[in-house]
Amino acid sequence: MAKVLFKQWGPFAVLMIIAISALFIPLLPNFDEGKYSGPDIAFVLISAALVFIMTPGLAFFYGGMVHRKNILSTMIKSVVAAGVITVLWVVCGFSLAFGESIGGLIGNPKTFLFFQGVNSSPSWSLAATIPLSLFAVFQLMFAIITPGLVVGAVAERIRFTSYILFILLFALLVYSPLAHWSWHPEGILFKMGVLDFAGGTVVHISAGMAALAGALVLKRRKSHIEHKEVPPANIPYVLIGTGLLWFGWFGFNAGSALGANSLAVSAFLTTNTAAGAAGLAWMFFDVARGKKPSVLGFCIGAVVGLVAITPGAGFVSIPSSIFIGAIAAVISNLVVSWKQKTSLDDTLDVFPCHGVGGIVGMLLTGVFATKTVNGAGVDGLFYGNPEFFITQLKGVVIVVVFSFVMSFIIFKLINLVQPIRVSEEEEEEGLDASQHNEKYSQGTLIVASTGAEIENTF
Amino acid sequence: MAKVLFKQWGPFAVLMIIAISALFIPLLPNFDEGKYSGPDIAFVLISAALVFIMTPGLAFFYGGMVHRKNILSTMIKSVVAAGVITVLWVVCGFSLAFGESIGGLIGNPKTFLFFQGVNSSPSWSLAATIPLSLFAVFQLMFAIITPGLVVGAVAERIRFTSYILFILLFALLVYSPLAHWSWHPEGILFKMGVLDFAGGTVVHISAGMAALAGALVLKRRKSHIEHKEVPPANIPYVLIGTGLLWFGWFGFNAGSALGANSLAVSAFLTTNTAAGAAGLAWMFFDVARGKKPSVLGFCIGAVVGLVAITPGAGFVSIPSSIFIGAIAAVISNLVVSWKQKTSLDDTLDVFPCHGVGGIVGMLLTGVFATKTVNGAGVDGLFYGNPEFFITQLKGVVIVVVFSFVMSFIIFKLINLVQPIRVSEEEEEEGLDASQHNEKYSQGTLIVASTGAEIENTF
Amino acid sequence: MAKVLFKQWGPFAVLMIIAISALFIPLLPNFDEGKYSGPDIAFVLISAALVFIMTPGLAFFYGGMVHRKNILSTMIKSVVAAGVITVLWVVCGFSLAFGESIGGLIGNPKTFLFFQGVNSSPSWSLAATIPLSLFAVFQLMFAIITPGLVVGAVAERIRFTSYILFILLFALLVYSPLAHWSWHPEGILFKMGVLDFAGGTVVHISAGMAALAGALVLKRRKSHIEHKEVPPANIPYVLIGTGLLWFGWFGFNAGSALGANSLAVSAFLTTNTAAGAAGLAWMFFDVARGKKPSVLGFCIGAVVGLVAITPGAGFVSIPSSIFIGAIAAVISNLVVSWKQKTSLDDTLDVFPCHGVGGIVGMLLTGVFATKTVNGAGVDGLFYGNPEFFITQLKGVVIVVVFSFVMSFIIFKLINLVQPIRVSEEEEEEGLDASQHNEKYSQGTLIVASTGAEIENTF
Repeated sequence: MAKVLFKQWGPFAVLMIIAISALFIPLLPNFDEGKYSGPDIAFVLISAALVFIMTPGLAFFYGGMVHRKNILSTMIKSVVAAGVITVLWVVCGFSLAFGESIGGLIGNPKTFLFFQGVNSSPSWSLAATIPLSLFAVFQLMFAIITPGLVVGAVAERIRFTSYILFILLFALLVYSPLAHWSWHPEGILFKMGVLDFAGGTVVHISAGMAALAGALVLKRRKSHIEHKEVPPANIPYVLIGTGLLWFGWFGFNAGSALGANSLAVSAFLTTNTAAGAAGLAWMFFDVARGKKPSVLGFCIGAVVGLVAITPGAGFVSIPSSIFIGAIAAVISNLVVSWKQKTSLDDTLDVFPCHGVGGIVGMLLTGVFATKTVNGAGVDGLFYGNPEFFITQLKGVVIVVVFSFVMSFIIFKLINLVQPIRVSEEEEEEGLDASQHNEKYSQGTLIVASTGAEIENTF
Repeated sequence: MAKVLFKQWGPFAVLMIIAISALFIPLLPNFDEGKYSGPDIAFVLISAALVFIMTPGLAFFYGGMVHRKNILSTMIKSVVAAGVITVLWVVCGFSLAFGESIGGLIGNPKTFLFFQGVNSSPSWSLAATIPLSLFAVFQLMFAIITPGLVVGAVAERIRFTSYILFILLFALLVYSPLAHWSWHPEGILFKMGVLDFAGGTVVHISAGMAALAGALVLKRRKSHIEHKEVPPANIPYVLIGTGLLWFGWFGFNAGSALGANSLAVSAFLTTNTAAGAAGLAWMFFDVARGKKPSVLGFCIGAVVGLVAITPGAGFVSIPSSIFIGAIAAVISNLVVSWKQKTSLDDTLDVFPCHGVGGIVGMLLTGVFATKTVNGAGVDGLFYGNPEFFITQLKGVVIVVVFSFVMSFIIFKLINLVQPIRVSEEEEEEGLDASQHNEKYSQGTLIVASTGAEIENTF
Repeated sequence: MAKVLFKQWGPFAVLMIIAISALFIPLLPNFDEGKYSGPDIAFVLISAALVFIMTPGLAFFYGGMVHRKNILSTMIKSVVAAGVITVLWVVCGFSLAFGESIGGLIGNPKTFLFFQGVNSSPSWSLAATIPLSLFAVFQLMFAIITPGLVVGAVAERIRFTSYILFILLFALLVYSPLAHWSWHPEGILFKMGVLDFAGGTVVHISAGMAALAGALVLKRRKSHIEHKEVPPANIPYVLIGTGLLWFGWFGFNAGSALGANSLAVSAFLTTNTAAGAAGLAWMFFDVARGKKPSVLGFCIGAVVGLVAITPGAGFVSIPSSIFIGAIAAVISNLVVSWKQKTSLDDTLDVFPCHGVGGIVGMLLTGVFATKTVNGAGVDGLFYGNPEFFITQLKGVVIVVVFSFVMSFIIFKLINLVQPIRVSEEEEEEGLDASQHNEKYSQGTLIVASTGAEIENTF
């Protein structure tokens, strides 16, 4: 009884305790805006909004690919992160990622507890022209979408409450540390000289490895074991999702220049070019292998291109970005094909697309980075500097191992608390009905010829 | 016969008369841009575009919740405001709201007739860094979405032509006066010291009270009387609608700082935080009360949070915004539950969400406003200034009474001219077919096993 | 056998050759950002993103209007241009449009081969405050959407590979030359004094005439010959498409001011006003002629208004834009009605909407342009300068003839290489299945009363 009450009232109680505690945080004065650049504030604010819209975009990208009985449960898992991670980020997530460094491993959670001092602190050292609070909200949007990416691997079987636990723990134990390592000036990867412009490691490799861990811990869906193909519920949903992702990615990558400057323009161009080349490469590679050119193929390919260009967007040249996009799409396409022959049930190919795409992007940044594009960057292998490639490779290995092991532990831990997977009956019924008591679309079909009514309950 | 001809040709004739009259408005020279701030122009222009996309977002938010036979008729009612209010705003709406004040009650309709002088006039006194014409179009986007909010209360039964009349009269007699009262330096609420950062009174309370009036005048739907539940037609539509609303709300609230400055950053942060906290609070409160966590619940909760933070977005701190979002969601959730036990047929809960959400937001602005965040603001009750809370309360009462009474009169008046409601047969058939002769989705289903065709005419 | 292999591997091989060649383009240093304007960079970057989102918007606008068996094949044809034209633009498209002028007819393809020098070249002479690379990517977004507009005319019957060939040839032989003629300071139309602010000729007339040519070469759909009405598959898709188009058009037209300045504000206002007036005019004109006010009508009308204001957006006054929008909608509405009586099978009325809308917009720019709005513009007929009207008329005639003849030749040429149209069986089956092996939406309907399952394979 107490357990039922706790399960029912627990989450609400925790949230209300946070909300009330928040009122008693002493306020510090707002920043002195004279020090900042108007155009940079304007550009990064809008970029943050663009990154936000990627989360609903992701919901549609994934939601359109699952069985129609699981559309809503898939969609809400991306979008609910905009609630959970927002609150967490304000409370302590931002501090863990960008607070005072504790040995280069993690930020001090008290530095910006409840965003205290975020308005009055000096700017982030790497973003001198915008206030720290703007940097904090721009970074929040990245923290929101990353756990959402993992949904694709565990869709159609993960319990909703277990998923909420997962994103909390993932944000605290995987995302925030990685952001600290890569983007804090005292972070261990930053100090090693690993370059990750907009989140190849922090966002994509981490999500891709968590996806792999999740697929392994959650095991295969019943439909997967029985080799039943799950036809994508609604491909236009995938297409609008891709459109919103591509659109928002301009904020993600160009916005990562943290100002309306030459780097932003350059990152915007490499981003679009890689996406276009990758969409085509995936589709044409499908055709080369005897398939028909498909809408899904173009969409998935474009997203892989966007993933792959993310770490190098501000470091590589526009011509290189054609190559990066095209080759990443081919590699991910091959990994997807290979995966289909295994028993790994990564529902929507998050590992091949985000994990592999992120790894390829990090390594190719090691190859094609050039000081000609970004004076603050370095030259890569292709421009005569093999050392930088080795550095990127080391960084990739560290992030791959850390995020896989940590995510695996998190999933296993949750499974100790409560079954991480829905029951077999709930899986059969569909997660929309069993987890949320909702149906994605309802109504009555009338058979025109006879007037009979068909209750549309799919 | 004449009456039929008038009904058919009347609207077109009026529009063409306006279009032709417009050509004979003497042009005044364009503004001198040397006086304005480039970053502020860039930011407010894009913010205006973001507020625009909220209107299609609202169409999907509402359209996904009605019966599938009423999807289109619900959607078009939000979107058509982008036509009707745009033309009205250029002709005289902006003048009524922001023209030379007549006793603090209304603007002089001739001040900017047909936007004359909008380009050459000095800037709005409260927006000195952007041209008046930019202020005018930013404000237009608010005027467009407000009547669209009312749609949710009268959906599934209001006649389309009556609705068009309603938004015209509402814009002239409710919205423009309220905008004048709250945001014109000589407006009566402005002078009282009532603070409404981005439209808690002007947009949300006014829409919420008009919704209540509309529901009362239009009376209950047949399905409501018969206690037939209307299953939401398409929940992904609600989700993309929520995504676009949240995305656009960054323009709505941060853009209301009217420049790329510290206030905009602060408003952006409080907006996102309140939305996230509110979505969670609604969902967790549902769970606490024994329901399943639903997609609809998270979406509606997030929108309520956005509503509630609107009046205080630039006046309250980030930690307070967690509380404001969470508590507003709980209150609106309770009001929705209470409403469901009454015979009030506010189809999609506009009054509990926008009316109550706006009231809660205005009052909590009275509690949590602080000069630490906004030097031009005041301290609220929580910071030792009960007077400001009383001021906000007075403002709320005035706006509640005015917008309810005025909207009630408008709905009644329209009902004198023509039945405001469709006929019983038209309601049964669905408004898409009866009002617009359209079906939202069409095609033929083929029964795979037998090859029989089912005409999908739901 | 060799032919099959070539068909399969050809496109992929070409793309990979481009991708590898790109790596060997010598890099030139990045631009010196000290010379540029931060606010203008911020505004044009975001505007480019807004124009990008128009392409998925267009996919939904068109995809919602075709038969449900052709939704995906229609959508992908807009979106794939974001791949094909992106790569082409980087390789040589931008050079052809804006490279060193060869007799005012075409740019030198070597000027910016593989975007070489785009980062280091001095700014475009007409966009002095932003780097050339930003101008290049903003223009790219226009080059992407233009061939996508043609899709509406040839939908439901064009072979996918033929369509890919078409957009390649159209971009090289129609779009790039027209962009050069109208927007390069040595272009022949530019020198004639023809004014086209944001693409009335380059984008809309060219797409409209290509649509006419395509409809004539591809001939009528089977359903059109048999006078079978194709009910629009999903009108909410059309509505979200319209919303995204309208939203993105703010970037298209206001962004064409190439800076966050007075012209951008003015173009933003005329754009919104024309769209609103045109949506209403189309709907009210339908009502005047005895039809019901429809969602489709408002949406199509709004798009026609956006088309018509495009060439004049920065040259005409706000009051004139009401007239331009309203009259363009009436004219296009009449042309659509007239077209329906002919045997011309322009599936989704691209010629009446974009072709005629563009022509009307160009001519009315000749009538209502005024130096009061834009000092760099000229006065039109209405302001006492009939010569400018004649100039616009000449420009229109040249573009109409050129783009029709050229597109006609392109379509005919492609038909020589391979049948431009799918086979009769493929048309009957639907292009989604026959060209892409995909179905837009899948699942199983369960008849509630009996439990029977209906495989939903439409």
